[in-house]
Amino acid sequence: MESVPYLTRKLAPVEVLSAEGLELIEHNADLLLEQVGVEIVGYDEALQIFGDAGAEIDGTRVRFPKGMCRQIIQASAPQSFTQHARNPERSVIIGDPHTVLVPAYGSPFVRDLEGGRRYATIEDFNNFAKLSYMTPSMHHNGGTLCEPVDLPVNKRHVDMVYAHIKYSDKPFMGSVTHPDRAVDSVDMAKIIFGQDFVRDNTVILGLANANSPMSWDFNMLGSAKVYAENNQATLITPFILAGAMSPVTVAAAATQTLAEALAGMAFTQIVRPGAPVIFGSFASSMSMQSGAPTFGTPEPQMVMYVVAALARRVGVPFRSGGNFTASKTPDAQAAYESAISFLPAIQAGVNFLLHTAGWLEGGLTMGYEKFIIDADQASMMATWVDGVDLSENGQALDSLLTNGPGNHYLGTAHTLANFETAFWSSAQSDNNSFEQWDEDGAKDSIARAHKTWTRMLREYEAPPLDAAREAELDEWIVKCKASFPDSDI
Amino acid sequence: MESVPYLTRKLAPVEVLSAEGLELIEHNADLLLEQVGVEIVGYDEALQIFGDAGAEIDGTRVRFPKGMCRQIIQASAPQSFTQHARNPERSVIIGDPHTVLVPAYGSPFVRDLEGGRRYATIEDFNNFAKLSYMTPSMHHNGGTLCEPVDLPVNKRHVDMVYAHIKYSDKPFMGSVTHPDRAVDSVDMAKIIFGQDFVRDNTVILGLANANSPMSWDFNMLGSAKVYAENNQATLITPFILAGAMSPVTVAAAATQTLAEALAGMAFTQIVRPGAPVIFGSFASSMSMQSGAPTFGTPEPQMVMYVVAALARRVGVPFRSGGNFTASKTPDAQAAYESAISFLPAIQAGVNFLLHTAGWLEGGLTMGYEKFIIDADQASMMATWVDGVDLSENGQALDSLLTNGPGNHYLGTAHTLANFETAFWSSAQSDNNSFEQWDEDGAKDSIARAHKTWTRMLREYEAPPLDAAREAELDEWIVKCKASFPDSDI
Repeated sequence: MESVPYLTRKLAPVEVLSAEGLELIEHNADLLLEQVGVEIVGYDEALQIFGDAGAEIDGTRVRFPKGMCRQIIQASAPQSFTQHARNPERSVIIGDPHTVLVPAYGSPFVRDLEGGRRYATIEDFNNFAKLSYMTPSMHHNGGTLCEPVDLPVNKRHVDMVYAHIKYSDKPFMGSVTHPDRAVDSVDMAKIIFGQDFVRDNTVILGLANANSPMSWDFNMLGSAKVYAENNQATLITPFILAGAMSPVTVAAAATQTLAEALAGMAFTQIVRPGAPVIFGSFASSMSMQSGAPTFGTPEPQMVMYVVAALARRVGVPFRSGGNFTASKTPDAQAAYESAISFLPAIQAGVNFLLHTAGWLEGGLTMGYEKFIIDADQASMMATWVDGVDLSENGQALDSLLTNGPGNHYLGTAHTLANFETAFWSSAQSDNNSFEQWDEDGAKDSIARAHKTWTRMLREYEAPPLDAAREAELDEWIVKCKASFPDSDI
Repeated sequence: MESVPYLTRKLAPVEVLSAEGLELIEHNADLLLEQVGVEIVGYDEALQIFGDAGAEIDGTRVRFPKGMCRQIIQASAPQSFTQHARNPERSVIIGDPHTVLVPAYGSPFVRDLEGGRRYATIEDFNNFAKLSYMTPSMHHNGGTLCEPVDLPVNKRHVDMVYAHIKYSDKPFMGSVTHPDRAVDSVDMAKIIFGQDFVRDNTVILGLANANSPMSWDFNMLGSAKVYAENNQATLITPFILAGAMSPVTVAAAATQTLAEALAGMAFTQIVRPGAPVIFGSFASSMSMQSGAPTFGTPEPQMVMYVVAALARRVGVPFRSGGNFTASKTPDAQAAYESAISFLPAIQAGVNFLLHTAGWLEGGLTMGYEKFIIDADQASMMATWVDGVDLSENGQALDSLLTNGPGNHYLGTAHTLANFETAFWSSAQSDNNSFEQWDEDGAKDSIARAHKTWTRMLREYEAPPLDAAREAELDEWIVKCKASFPDSDI
């Protein structure tokens, strides 16, 4: 399976604000951290940690002297880092000028053309783990590809991490729903990569969302602490539905995102200076009729362009974007909304692009066909970020000067030498004539994608896994699951 | 009917090449014009015109001394101009920092959900003229909205121009399929706007495509001459399927586009210095399997970003882009491909954005539902180009500093003051819950768009038209059609 392990940008990121505009937002975020601060919910140890580092503690509120968080982060957080895969060819660099494309995360439902919408199961999870492994444009296997709701809440993290290890050899994410589950995730990684290797290298990544506005809870921050202590990576993501969790404006959503992320990232660096941390941003607009989140609208893209620039100024990798939609099926609404959120993420220079494939229905559903169509679009982006080739071959001046007016270029030496690699080509689009398409059954995108993923699962072959390590992992899982009773909280 | 008459950009255009890169392409285009030149097919008068202006004529070939075309254009072509509509509120400014959104152009077929794909008729044309009029995000009524193939080839231009005048009060385009038909188009405009007004103002626009590579024919260049002589506007557009009509690379397609456009634009300025002219670019990639044109691929977008920058350096308005797709129906393929061509056109700073709504099947089909869905997406772009508001209200600092952690923003004074205008909202997207959507009939984008356009046509009311002028126009049409026999060439 041929695969570019990650994208490398030659194009400069798209900017929507001047340096002065960005400084204004940084100034406002500092005021917010100084005057309002963050609330820490149910996690006294975090209050202690922040206090020892110089923050002002007032009950469960933490206020930060101007510049404190930025200073702590910039003193130790890496600008970029490698997340190792168990197959070294699939290890990824997370940070500029690279982009790592990652499947969608967290849906309780799945949908496909034949089965419709239904609760996700561990079988669906395993399917998406396999599809992610088989899809060259997915550089990473992701984390909670869907929620296996047929398994107990307090044990399903084990089955998810296992699926990523067993069915793929790409990098993956661990659990953050409780610090103990983060520990389990890291322990499983240690069995596969070896204790020593994990001590010195990053092999797993946890996604910690803020409880916006300006609040962090025990499970998320406690899980971040586990990953950081183990020198593993954390994603610190304010999750903002603008108008509900922040003021409605782009500048205010960006300001609050910066403030919340600075507090969270500083926490990881106090816990373990130098532990890899990614600045995350998830922002959405909302329907004025119903209050429902909306996607593919301009305002969240502007937040993303701004926060990407703010992250570059902090000097840490940035996560945002994805093929977002509120649509229930992979129809034109889904595709328009997805493209309007995905292309800007590529242009903004996002380094870790979660939710690249599969997202439907505001994240409630992971779609099989949507996954295939999104991943096909994602395969375009290696070409996109490569920009314009101005080499001699790119200029093609000889060809231009010798071909002559009115003569086609199909058979010229330059065309023949470049044709095969000249254009990115979609594996899902139908570019045939109407007549040919009609004769082929007049299939739309969904029907074609259905054919693709069902074929892929039939053809799936697991990547090789060291037998001794697999046996050790199996034993660990049996022991772990037996050590405490099932629970659905 | 509320409508912004055109977009006004605050965001700077997205650039993909440095000034040095653009200079290199300009240098190569100059070599191409000097060494190869353009072929003029069946139009001796144009050879004469070019020769008198200083070009070197060799049979039907015209070669241009270095810098000649650019100099001629920059001496007289306006940087921007107003195209007047018969309703002054709908007049548009074509040129920076504005963008005028225009329906798709030129399809012989139409498609809708119930009727499927079929040859277009004048009834379809009239329908699209009405829909364009009723759609606030269409700033212009366009030209050949579809080919009314039920009418004789040599007379249908009269019915098309009539439909734009009768069913809409927005600006429109005239015929270019023969210089005589361009004359008819201008004559009809004169009846509606008045001879004097048309002498001094631009009220109609003709689209002249080059026969790439490096060739111009009698019909297109002759029609351009008619519009220019009458001080009306021309669009000079190299139409390049890269690999067939130019080398396969982005830089070479941009070079050739620049050379062909410079020759065509210079022609209009020699004919009538100061006549409005728009630098056009249409570039597509092709399928390596079949040679069919492909859309929504990265390479043509790079050509567009580059040529937009080249047009700014010439100092004339720029036309490119559109919601392009090779898909036969408005499915996910159509939407992804369209978004990947449309958003870059907005970002590139395109001034006249033809093919904004309706395009299907590589331009062979004008889609009713596609028109509605594209136009809905187009309605987003006024917000997009407005960029980020850093005013006091945009910063919302008071709101951020007083709301407090964990408290939602739904009822704050700032939210209440801004909520209604805070977010662009799609009229076509379904943001409801799955349950609500299912209860509403589980309609996809196509079904919803079908409902929209059929309702619009039922509710259509023609804009007022001066009765005396309408009578004069009717009389002119009867006389014109009777003055020569029907023909299908």
